[in-house]
Amino acid sequence: MKFKKLVSVGISEEIIDKKYWDMLSELAEERVLLPKDSDKIEEELANADGLLVWFNGADKDLIDKAPSLKYIGALATGVGKIDVAYATSKGIVVTNIPGYSTEAVSELVIAVLLENLRDLSRGKTKSKQARTPEFDFSGREIKGRDFGVIGLGRIGTRVAELAKAFGADVYYWSRSPKPDVSDKFKYEELDQMISHCDFLSINLALNHETEGILNAERIAAIKDGAVVINTAPLELIDLEALDERLSKGTITFIFDHTDPDDINDEWLERLRKHDNCITYPVLGYITDEAKTALQEIFVNNAKSFLSGSPTNTVK
Amino acid sequence: MKFKKLVSVGISEEIIDKKYWDMLSELAEERVLLPKDSDKIEEELANADGLLVWFNGADKDLIDKAPSLKYIGALATGVGKIDVAYATSKGIVVTNIPGYSTEAVSELVIAVLLENLRDLSRGKTKSKQARTPEFDFSGREIKGRDFGVIGLGRIGTRVAELAKAFGADVYYWSRSPKPDVSDKFKYEELDQMISHCDFLSINLALNHETEGILNAERIAAIKDGAVVINTAPLELIDLEALDERLSKGTITFIFDHTDPDDINDEWLERLRKHDNCITYPVLGYITDEAKTALQEIFVNNAKSFLSGSPTNTVK
Repeated sequence: MKFKKLVSVGISEEIIDKKYWDMLSELAEERVLLPKDSDKIEEELANADGLLVWFNGADKDLIDKAPSLKYIGALATGVGKIDVAYATSKGIVVTNIPGYSTEAVSELVIAVLLENLRDLSRGKTKSKQARTPEFDFSGREIKGRDFGVIGLGRIGTRVAELAKAFGADVYYWSRSPKPDVSDKFKYEELDQMISHCDFLSINLALNHETEGILNAERIAAIKDGAVVINTAPLELIDLEALDERLSKGTITFIFDHTDPDDINDEWLERLRKHDNCITYPVLGYITDEAKTALQEIFVNNAKSFLSGSPTNTVK
Repeated sequence: MKFKKLVSVGISEEIIDKKYWDMLSELAEERVLLPKDSDKIEEELANADGLLVWFNGADKDLIDKAPSLKYIGALATGVGKIDVAYATSKGIVVTNIPGYSTEAVSELVIAVLLENLRDLSRGKTKSKQARTPEFDFSGREIKGRDFGVIGLGRIGTRVAELAKAFGADVYYWSRSPKPDVSDKFKYEELDQMISHCDFLSINLALNHETEGILNAERIAAIKDGAVVINTAPLELIDLEALDERLSKGTITFIFDHTDPDDINDEWLERLRKHDNCITYPVLGYITDEAKTALQEIFVNNAKSFLSGSPTNTVK
């Protein structure tokens, strides 16, 4: 069986190798690739039975444009921007790609933390130009520090394990304590954890319960001198409060973003002007290993759906 | 008991906080601080009974300038540049500072590796200037790769543990296999290890056996695409062969250096011109934790010697 019409909305062509686009084309009689702001979406979705989306997701409006839709394949782990309940109620199968970037994101969290703690970019740049004494550098170690992980899913758990291996005292907050990790990581209430951790990694999925969870009170309560790393959606955070806290110079905030869906221009400018706000492109899933897994699972999810035994379905 | 005259040669004033200099001054009737190229060394050492040195060390010539010498305190772990056998034969006690920077150096090895694998400096710099798509970035993970540690002393062991925690397959070479780590790290002959490891960390102490151990044949045999991190003395390496290998663009070499004792201007220029040669100041011991330990042990070694129960003696 094949899709009659498989439409991709909002997936950049560059992120999928030609080989995998070709495999997807073989699964459909017709395949269409549209930018997320295309004015052809309505027309093309009218008779589509398959929809592929990226971080842009698929809200009720988009789903309603495709009355024949049977399948939504997300090229991502998080489906916070897909109206899964609505899709499911209409008999549409939704799939995601769990776990493909667990290691890639977790290693990146430790990487950007260490880069900051050891002032690597400055050291590397200056040392390339001229002999540079180390005396005007300083550093901190991960070992012996309080390391808090907000959200203990796959990535949060792996970040916690790595922090533990470095010798940090690892704390976590999650919607519910997880008894099977209690010998390694200590459960704490979010407010308590924020107040004493030297390093915080935010690894929550975005949903109605978590949106804005790092509210003004909590942003203000983060320990002075803390380094906060956010590789999760910024919708978890009260950006007004973050901007104010950054202007005091008492925390360092590191986050990744690429397009205006992650953060709009106005907010980006406000945050980026602070020296203690460090940003990266969304490098978390950009490893050879993660990119291969991402594409293989993406194609396999579509194949499995067509064969009648869908994999990685989300409900 | 106090030193009659305690002379520091080659220790930069900035590396010791005033508090610890004051403590050292209290241990001596007279205290003198000299740069390592001072023309007063001969005169000042003539009646010195205590000598403090840094990475510059103390060779036979220097020791011979101080006929009353009873104590040499090294502000370092490695004593490869102190003629310990000669000093000992003259009844001079030599002390060093073991272990103070184990964690600081080991975390740095992982830090500079991850910085390179994830292209962090470029990502951070570009992202600070403008929205930067991730598509022209790539990355590799530590997990699942072959990670070789050359020299399994304190630092090498800790680097190996961290690499293992990241999920690498960890190999090591050491003058002798260490049976108690055989369940975690695999012993291999140096030539074999070099040929297949994706990442190599050099953590050998410098001595007559290890000088030049990474000879031309071994440098040429390093696996294509490997990242080599050297936080040990460059005297371990055939720099001519390294320069040639770097010019082929098939390995990345990362090392730290500060002054001409680490690497002279001519060699520095030759290596630094390669894009695949990355250098840092000697950031390994520059953490708050390591610097405090360094200074406390340095002062305590001198105190313990004076009290008749010397600590951290080297023979």
